[in-house]
Amino acid sequence: MKNLTILGSTGSIGQSTLDVVRHHRETFQIEALVGNRNIVQLAADAVEFGAKIAVTADPALFDQLTSALAGSGIAAAAGETAVIEAAQRPADLLIGAIVGAQGLKPTLAAIDQGTPVALANKECLVSAGDVFMQRAAAKSVPVIPVDSEHSAIFQCFETRNADSLDKVTLTASGGPFRTWDAAKLKDVRIEDALNHPNWTMGRKITIDSATLMNKGLELIEAFQLFPIGHGQIDAIVHPQSIVHSFVSYIDGSVLAQLGMPDMRTPIALALAYPERLKAPVERLDLTKSADLTFEPIRHDVFPAVRMCLAALERGGSATTILNAANEIAVAEFLSQRIGFLQIAALVEETLSLAERDSAITSLGSLDDVWDADRYGRETATELARNLL
Amino acid sequence: MKNLTILGSTGSIGQSTLDVVRHHRETFQIEALVGNRNIVQLAADAVEFGAKIAVTADPALFDQLTSALAGSGIAAAAGETAVIEAAQRPADLLIGAIVGAQGLKPTLAAIDQGTPVALANKECLVSAGDVFMQRAAAKSVPVIPVDSEHSAIFQCFETRNADSLDKVTLTASGGPFRTWDAAKLKDVRIEDALNHPNWTMGRKITIDSATLMNKGLELIEAFQLFPIGHGQIDAIVHPQSIVHSFVSYIDGSVLAQLGMPDMRTPIALALAYPERLKAPVERLDLTKSADLTFEPIRHDVFPAVRMCLAALERGGSATTILNAANEIAVAEFLSQRIGFLQIAALVEETLSLAERDSAITSLGSLDDVWDADRYGRETATELARNLL
Repeated sequence: MKNLTILGSTGSIGQSTLDVVRHHRETFQIEALVGNRNIVQLAADAVEFGAKIAVTADPALFDQLTSALAGSGIAAAAGETAVIEAAQRPADLLIGAIVGAQGLKPTLAAIDQGTPVALANKECLVSAGDVFMQRAAAKSVPVIPVDSEHSAIFQCFETRNADSLDKVTLTASGGPFRTWDAAKLKDVRIEDALNHPNWTMGRKITIDSATLMNKGLELIEAFQLFPIGHGQIDAIVHPQSIVHSFVSYIDGSVLAQLGMPDMRTPIALALAYPERLKAPVERLDLTKSADLTFEPIRHDVFPAVRMCLAALERGGSATTILNAANEIAVAEFLSQRIGFLQIAALVEETLSLAERDSAITSLGSLDDVWDADRYGRETATELARNLL
Repeated sequence: MKNLTILGSTGSIGQSTLDVVRHHRETFQIEALVGNRNIVQLAADAVEFGAKIAVTADPALFDQLTSALAGSGIAAAAGETAVIEAAQRPADLLIGAIVGAQGLKPTLAAIDQGTPVALANKECLVSAGDVFMQRAAAKSVPVIPVDSEHSAIFQCFETRNADSLDKVTLTASGGPFRTWDAAKLKDVRIEDALNHPNWTMGRKITIDSATLMNKGLELIEAFQLFPIGHGQIDAIVHPQSIVHSFVSYIDGSVLAQLGMPDMRTPIALALAYPERLKAPVERLDLTKSADLTFEPIRHDVFPAVRMCLAALERGGSATTILNAANEIAVAEFLSQRIGFLQIAALVEETLSLAERDSAITSLGSLDDVWDADRYGRETATELARNLL
């Protein structure tokens, strides 16, 4: 039996993880489930899977969770410290699927305990970069990516032949605005942006997919996860989302991972690695799927990808500030306070100010990360206020 | 330095191998080159690469080869025994690229010496099946496939997860007659059949590509090379020849190998394995390549694939007889004695007669292989004579 803790169990990745576990009850047991405000789902899942403890990040919901679990024998807890304590419980694998910078502390807490991590929280790598991977390396903790793109690279990357790498290419669906011009993009409504063609995901990541910021963040993440040099990583648009990413070698060979766009495949891989596990997903039949097409990213209309590569090249806290500014910008957009094109503009302007303020520093510790994160949030918030 | 012997050095695969070696003279040296009747090429290559010996399979050409090598200090030899002796010389890798059943004896001779083999001769696996792989296993000799499809599978097949295999799918370009109907195929000319859309290859294999017999033989070969069950292997048409084959797992994940259609990529892999080597090939740029399309094989028009799968399921010498009959049938077609559609018909009829004659036996030894091979050739030749 493999003992699992899921951070972010009520979110999209958490729910898909539980669905895979549902089909393999003989293989997995649930140690702890950590959710946020969806107490009904959290309690129902804790009961269904016999978790030892259920935790909500929101202390105000402690009583509600306690009532929902009354008589089940399952412990309840709430608040940031409780989340970290849940992550520190002994487990064979922690699924780190809390969205945003909030996922960083508890995921690192698991790493420090030596617990292997299946990572779906990209901010751990984008914000905390070297610090995160250094702490994983110090404990020899495997970090298995859950994102479909990084799972694809994980399956295609020959570690023994890292010297023979030509490049790593992430595929992007292109999002709902793949064919829109800049003029039309000015007036994008929230509903348009939330209408992703191939994947059903949370709101934040869906907006990031529409701006292609998601792909940019994934490039940063890939750079942290795999031994890739600057200039060896890029993204292309592949509207069908069948080829999830690929790795090219110096002999002209390209290894790709394909599949239906269903997160349960990369989740099953992360749960079973180095083995594989039957996943309850539709199988890919290429004779029935659409033709596979590929096109370059329109960097003039979607500047986020190049912005992320530039921040990656800049190094240090540049990606931390970028990520923090993007979280603010997306929230502002979802609150209808800024327009769609202003998301990337706000991030870019924050980075310019950071350069002017000499706020881009190397990241020696987690405190440096928090400082940069705060700088990015405050600067972006102030910039957004001035835009109103 | 890796010491190489090339069987079939003047053929298409042999020449591509030498071209890869030409770019890595510091890594490889040539022990022996074995060719057939192209003495000019054989001698020129032996001199360019400083081979220790050059061998022609044709004893009548011994004097010609000796003259061509006069003063070079390179030994010359000729005839079947000399070919086998060349294969037995100590080498770090033998490239087995003699086309047809003639490749079997010398390749096995290398295996028996414990020499690792990069195998481009499919008849070794199609004709001699279990016998060949058993002898390789007995000496723990690695057999690295050179065919683009099997190289693709070799790169995508997770041996540790053979239990989690869903299926292996070979891609077929569909050949020059992919869209032709049966009526039109009756009148195919040799020039049409030799005009392959994506690959430049020898005449025999080009005709096999046109009938799709090549794909059928490759299915048999894949079955021998990898731990695959009956029903776990299939082929689909992919006209662009960019995806060279793929492996599907029970978690819904599909691993594929892609690249430009250039044999120097799988050859470089075989030469360098488990490492990789820079190959002088054009790199794949999916944003510039055609859309990738896939379609089912038209089994009604191209019966060869199902015929091969049936022979594989039948087991024993069925694939030996099939392969022998096909060699005769292709030769008859190239001599303009039978029509295009009669190639598959001749093979099918040979197998029917073999069943009637109880000529399909298990293959315990190489003698059984020769008996079955002879039966297939004689029966197909007689059938062809009756068709005239």
